[in-house]
Amino acid sequence: MTDAATVLARCAELDEFSARPDGLERVYLSPEHARANGRVADWMRQAGLRTWQDAAGNQCGRHEGRTPGLPALLVGSHLDTVPDAGSYDGMLGVLMAVAVAERLRDRVRELPIALEVIGFGDEEGTRFGTTLLGSRAVAGRWDESWWDLRDRDGLTLRHAFLEFGLDPARVADATRAPDELVGYLEAHIEQGPHLEAAGRALGYVTTIAGARRFSLTVVGEARHAGGTPYPRRRDALVGASEAIVAIEQTARAAGCLATVGRIEVAPGAVNVVPGRVDFSLDLRAITDTHRDATWDAIRGRIDGICSARGLRFEAHELHRAAATPCAAWLQEAVVSGIAATGDAEPPGLWSPAGHDAMALGQTTDVGMLFIRCADGISHHPAEAVDEVDVAQGLDALESAVLAVAARWARR
Amino acid sequence: MTDAATVLARCAELDEFSARPDGLERVYLSPEHARANGRVADWMRQAGLRTWQDAAGNQCGRHEGRTPGLPALLVGSHLDTVPDAGSYDGMLGVLMAVAVAERLRDRVRELPIALEVIGFGDEEGTRFGTTLLGSRAVAGRWDESWWDLRDRDGLTLRHAFLEFGLDPARVADATRAPDELVGYLEAHIEQGPHLEAAGRALGYVTTIAGARRFSLTVVGEARHAGGTPYPRRRDALVGASEAIVAIEQTARAAGCLATVGRIEVAPGAVNVVPGRVDFSLDLRAITDTHRDATWDAIRGRIDGICSARGLRFEAHELHRAAATPCAAWLQEAVVSGIAATGDAEPPGLWSPAGHDAMALGQTTDVGMLFIRCADGISHHPAEAVDEVDVAQGLDALESAVLAVAARWARR
Repeated sequence: MTDAATVLARCAELDEFSARPDGLERVYLSPEHARANGRVADWMRQAGLRTWQDAAGNQCGRHEGRTPGLPALLVGSHLDTVPDAGSYDGMLGVLMAVAVAERLRDRVRELPIALEVIGFGDEEGTRFGTTLLGSRAVAGRWDESWWDLRDRDGLTLRHAFLEFGLDPARVADATRAPDELVGYLEAHIEQGPHLEAAGRALGYVTTIAGARRFSLTVVGEARHAGGTPYPRRRDALVGASEAIVAIEQTARAAGCLATVGRIEVAPGAVNVVPGRVDFSLDLRAITDTHRDATWDAIRGRIDGICSARGLRFEAHELHRAAATPCAAWLQEAVVSGIAATGDAEPPGLWSPAGHDAMALGQTTDVGMLFIRCADGISHHPAEAVDEVDVAQGLDALESAVLAVAARWARR
Repeated sequence: MTDAATVLARCAELDEFSARPDGLERVYLSPEHARANGRVADWMRQAGLRTWQDAAGNQCGRHEGRTPGLPALLVGSHLDTVPDAGSYDGMLGVLMAVAVAERLRDRVRELPIALEVIGFGDEEGTRFGTTLLGSRAVAGRWDESWWDLRDRDGLTLRHAFLEFGLDPARVADATRAPDELVGYLEAHIEQGPHLEAAGRALGYVTTIAGARRFSLTVVGEARHAGGTPYPRRRDALVGASEAIVAIEQTARAAGCLATVGRIEVAPGAVNVVPGRVDFSLDLRAITDTHRDATWDAIRGRIDGICSARGLRFEAHELHRAAATPCAAWLQEAVVSGIAATGDAEPPGLWSPAGHDAMALGQTTDVGMLFIRCADGISHHPAEAVDEVDVAQGLDALESAVLAVAARWARR
């Protein structure tokens, strides 16, 4: 039986499939993505799952239920990472699902549902700027305009598909019809400090906040640093800096989370006043209404800053996701799974972080199990989980899967 | 005789030697630097100059005076550019010097001085971050620690020398002894708005301000954008943004010029709170004392900002140049040159922009002639000069060279 120590060792083994020698970075449709899929497929087969890579590059495995072809409960998470990532965001959920599938390999044959494990190829959006490409393909929410998205090297998503050995014309084959699905269950590190602060190993998720992401641009005029006195400067970087400070002030006051994670300046020379700055904005809140009102306030502040400095401001929305509530019956199944490990009243949390469950929620019911992580750190090499918590999480996830099957039978 | 129209056409011709198809970028020891040197050498030979490329990659040409081997007046500027540059910063001064050498090819044989034209290979410091490499080699101020400077591709200056066909061990051969030199005269676009505002084509320079350049770093902690509430964030980019706004406020209030032209954020993902920001600072003032006091004030402000946000602040000085006064007798020679064109009392200006004359000023007397440019724009493709102003500049520079020879004889 695959235990927590094995799950953690497998997470460490996947760290080797990285684009960089000094840390972990594994993006959608990269050579290291292919290698990670291959290793996960090996472990899936050890667990007795029938495996395949779907038409969008997601790694899949299936146990049939009491008869072949029953609707499936999908359990999984993602295998891609941010740059300089930790070992657990995504991968832990996939490998816990594989472990639970191994534990249940004989039980599933008696259940009224099939059990599938899935490792999505793109959740973070690191490579193409647009997130959830893998899970949105499965949910049947692929957008044809994505084919022309480009990565930092100027390669299109279409090109990346072909290079990975996938046929862009067949991406719809990855889509799962709603009547093939029981629901989607995902285990994930909390990526926040709340479970640790409450002294609890596990929690269930009530709702996943929907983020909006923007590409923001401030345009001024590139001029010689020595020869341009202040009254003649239209410095795009000082304007963008004021905007970044205002974004934090506005979002913080509103109880939202706003992050500027990327910034690029042109022409980018030590002795030239910057003429143009492009930067990103990621905005999250408990409700969509609250988030949208905060964006309106931020936009108003930046308009004012730029107008006062003779700068032009442009905002282009790259991504918008509605909040995804977890289905009540799957929340109950996760709660009963955690309760079976001894915590009768586990905490319910809302997730400011996005998850593949947001995409799956557009086609089936979703539920999530959160696992405590050290100091709430994520998207960083210092990401850490406790083996004891993972062991408890495996027991809870196993029980939750059985609870789903029991509730499905009683419907 | 080479006239202003030819000088401007030659400037346009040099635009072709660029690292990018969509604009001008020519950095030290690049293939386009070699090609620009070759073309300038052709024009030098047409002007009757004996030509050579010196041991630091500067392009040189010489007319002997009334006897061979006399001390030389160097006249020139630089052939390297910033990224996305205009056509005149540097190049105009070199090509005006070539044109004046052609006009004087017969006169010099009667003068008590030799006349040399020089096109320096590095003034801007675009490639290696450290400026004036070409002119500092000539001034005998080469620093052995520079060999390990790296460009954006990680190539060292030593490597670039070898690739350009230069021998690092022989760089001192480029150095000119003080007794070989009469002085250094440079024509340059003003790169500022003052001549245009005053309605004057030409001006003489009184002093060149010395810049200080720093590499500044703010270190926080990279964390997940969704999972990290504000009290747990140590966002290096919001801190750096506050610092950039404070730099402008502090310098502006002090009457200095401060520019942040570069910024890089790590890890640089849309959904990760930035853990580290590196940015540049270029600081200039009329006097060194004033400039240094302003840096102290800026450092104090940034220390306060970072300390309030739990960030670490580091400053590393990359470059420091003392203000370089122009020699009185060369200021007089430039004034008399301009006066010969009809402007009896030309304006004297201080230069906030750095010039090769700063390096040469460490080994010989220097003087500078400024030419009006449109709207003070420089370091930008919109850089423009009026042909009529260039024609007047050529006459003034020719007269100034003769005035230098006359004053040298009278010493």
